[in-house]
Amino acid sequence: MPRSEFGRIATLAGMFGAPPEPDVGIGDDAAVLHPSGAVLATVDASVEGVHFRRGFASLDVLSQRAIEAAASDIAAMGGTVAGVGCGLLLAWTLPADISDDAFESLAIGARRAADRLGTTIVGGNLSSAPTLTLTTTVLGRAGVRTVSRRGARPGDVVAISGAPGRAAVGLHALLQGRADDATMADFVARWRSPRARLDLARDVAQTATAAVDLSDGLLQDAGHLADASGCRLRLRGSALPSSRALHACARALGLQPEALMLSGGEDYELLITSPRPPDRGAWIVIGEVLDGRGVEVVDDEGRLVPTPAQGWDHFAR
Amino acid sequence: MPRSEFGRIATLAGMFGAPPEPDVGIGDDAAVLHPSGAVLATVDASVEGVHFRRGFASLDVLSQRAIEAAASDIAAMGGTVAGVGCGLLLAWTLPADISDDAFESLAIGARRAADRLGTTIVGGNLSSAPTLTLTTTVLGRAGVRTVSRRGARPGDVVAISGAPGRAAVGLHALLQGRADDATMADFVARWRSPRARLDLARDVAQTATAAVDLSDGLLQDAGHLADASGCRLRLRGSALPSSRALHACARALGLQPEALMLSGGEDYELLITSPRPPDRGAWIVIGEVLDGRGVEVVDDEGRLVPTPAQGWDHFAR
Repeated sequence: MPRSEFGRIATLAGMFGAPPEPDVGIGDDAAVLHPSGAVLATVDASVEGVHFRRGFASLDVLSQRAIEAAASDIAAMGGTVAGVGCGLLLAWTLPADISDDAFESLAIGARRAADRLGTTIVGGNLSSAPTLTLTTTVLGRAGVRTVSRRGARPGDVVAISGAPGRAAVGLHALLQGRADDATMADFVARWRSPRARLDLARDVAQTATAAVDLSDGLLQDAGHLADASGCRLRLRGSALPSSRALHACARALGLQPEALMLSGGEDYELLITSPRPPDRGAWIVIGEVLDGRGVEVVDDEGRLVPTPAQGWDHFAR
Repeated sequence: MPRSEFGRIATLAGMFGAPPEPDVGIGDDAAVLHPSGAVLATVDASVEGVHFRRGFASLDVLSQRAIEAAASDIAAMGGTVAGVGCGLLLAWTLPADISDDAFESLAIGARRAADRLGTTIVGGNLSSAPTLTLTTTVLGRAGVRTVSRRGARPGDVVAISGAPGRAAVGLHALLQGRADDATMADFVARWRSPRARLDLARDVAQTATAAVDLSDGLLQDAGHLADASGCRLRLRGSALPSSRALHACARALGLQPEALMLSGGEDYELLITSPRPPDRGAWIVIGEVLDGRGVEVVDDEGRLVPTPAQGWDHFAR
């Protein structure tokens, strides 16, 4: 029989460190935070069988992944998760086959992710359940400006922070049992260990008119931003960053590289719109904002390119 | 096939009302809140098969129940969930058999609970999953003082806001298929429709040295407060509020009324310690705080009463 719920909470309180400011945290009814300025709040669930399978990575790594995915939403708002007023609440539902060792691996991962993000785990909830679910609430702080999905304007450029589709290649390698193939290693690592682009959140706050993180796939997430802003996004297919390795691995897995780039999710890169291309090298301009609706992809002659079905929809299949 | 994830999010955005302050809410990456003063943050999961069965109440009612249970933690801190800087994030994992109508029932319940609590649903997350799980993050605001579980001192009295064990009687009536029995109606309603005692949060903030809400059972929750405060709680068995109806229904269900009163969970009443009995009629003094550790129950002669196994532990069975 595993340790009791309260034994496990005590384990977490010990592993996750001292209570936050001033003195109330894990194990009490609610955490107390003292933010200065606007609070950014988001929640994200990582569900076994939907977002991951246990064999796809160690529980330590899956736990980190769940937290980075949630923190990515704060990066997309131009915010921070580090420092005063910020914190994580972890709601975990644990099946009976999660042993105390497995539980500790989840906790180690959570602590690692929190440390890396410069934030604190301030509370949470443990429950038994048929399904392993790692749900993370992130309380962040607004940057110099808060950037929603709604501010894109015709004439803006569209830029992304990294090549899309890499995590999807890694996921398919895992699904096909080819994760140990050395050529797939970088892509599998992209899927297993995403990093919220909080390093770019200042760029977002300083230069973006609108922003979104790439969790569901480039076309779909760009579509959300287009819808929210009431604009059309035109992406140039040839401008999308890619690599020979991505093309080779996608084909080796029997997949279309272009489809993965446009619709593969879970890269957790950022997509922004901005009146001018951002200065920093991290950003790659991939298109422009026009009047109209939706997202289109064009070739170098400006002709529409047929696009694959869009990204992930939890209730569409 | 049900509506898409994003169709469902749009439904929620429509039903849950306008974005919160100033303009970012449901459907964006994160909500933006502008609290003044300390933020109280808590998360609570309500899992099908663990916390409820679908047949135990309509989805509308189960959805309200999940939110009230989460908000109860804010009451236990002496805080509020209403007004500026406060809000709810709803992370729902939905099995394939949750139809659009069922989804709408969940949403109607959430809106009802939020309206009743005077708060706003500011964001959330929808995911497919094998298990229906309703996870609520509550962002509240501290009252005139924030009360943790840690401040009880020898000499304090122990008081509760209502009779414990009533929800447990209702739960057992539901488990035994006797919920339609008219004598059980009040108890079934207690289980189905708990109300976070935010009406008493001001009392908590003004008079309590420590507080906890009764979610896991009187003995267990009192034990958490005793542990956190480094004190012993002595409860007088004869002082525990009860009723003939509770005794009669418990016995009709083949259960010990005393065991339900001491260990039955999910009443969501409050337990406080205070240097003096609170003025208001809602509070019932049931014991005192002493040096030592743990919780004991005594009879009118001060003799220890054997107590049943303590309340709910998610990993103990």
